[in-house]
Amino acid sequence: MQTARLNRRSTCPVSTALDILGDRWSLLIVRDLMFGGARTYKDLRSSAEGIATNILASRLQALREAGIVTSRRDPEDGRSILYALTPKGIDLAPVLLELNRWGTRHEGGLPPPGLVEAWDADPRAFLADIRRNLSAR
Amino acid sequence: MQTARLNRRSTCPVSTALDILGDRWSLLIVRDLMFGGARTYKDLRSSAEGIATNILASRLQALREAGIVTSRRDPEDGRSILYALTPKGIDLAPVLLELNRWGTRHEGGLPPPGLVEAWDADPRAFLADIRRNLSAR
Repeated sequence: MQTARLNRRSTCPVSTALDILGDRWSLLIVRDLMFGGARTYKDLRSSAEGIATNILASRLQALREAGIVTSRRDPEDGRSILYALTPKGIDLAPVLLELNRWGTRHEGGLPPPGLVEAWDADPRAFLADIRRNLSAR
Repeated sequence: MQTARLNRRSTCPVSTALDILGDRWSLLIVRDLMFGGARTYKDLRSSAEGIATNILASRLQALREAGIVTSRRDPEDGRSILYALTPKGIDLAPVLLELNRWGTRHEGGLPPPGLVEAWDADPRAFLADIRRNLSAR
């Protein structure tokens, strides 16, 4: 199914990944759902980068169609939608961590303390922790 | 200097990285210079994804301004320009490898054989190999 996706530029996996993620915002949405505690549209709207509401809506829709994000009604508030990463979305953790490392080293970004260190110390345990934390929410 | 760059959306290193790399093409140009043996504009134009010449020119210029790519005249052909990655550009190898892993696992991309395996077996040695190969060219 997935290999029949349209607008695939080539079979290179870097290219197929960027067909979905190659913009300035998608990976920031994934970041906020993975590390920022974001669960609602409002949470995602309030990130430091000030994403425009139309961009957020269209990127969330694309991430849902790509199977990276799921949504469901909040059982405690039926008018509210909760967003979460799928296992496919959680598997983007290493991409985020390596972008974080590069941005810290070369673009003067201020990293969240301890994140890359925990990743380097034991990548497998780090990913297991993320999966456990996100599935418990 | 770099922290004074304009159009910085936030101080998050993932965001500062995507300020430069957050599009569908820039990391493919880095890929071709790192793993594809590309050295000239013509080499970069001939990648499987069929990048348009105006996009390639503008992305190459942005990558040069960001200190990711350098250019010089070909000593054997003064009319030709040779492009290469800087150390900052080579440091994007882990980002490419993790995108490659994700695209292979989740988007049906066909990976170059052995690449992710060599990276997982010994990331440090793998990066040293890339640096040595690229600096020898």
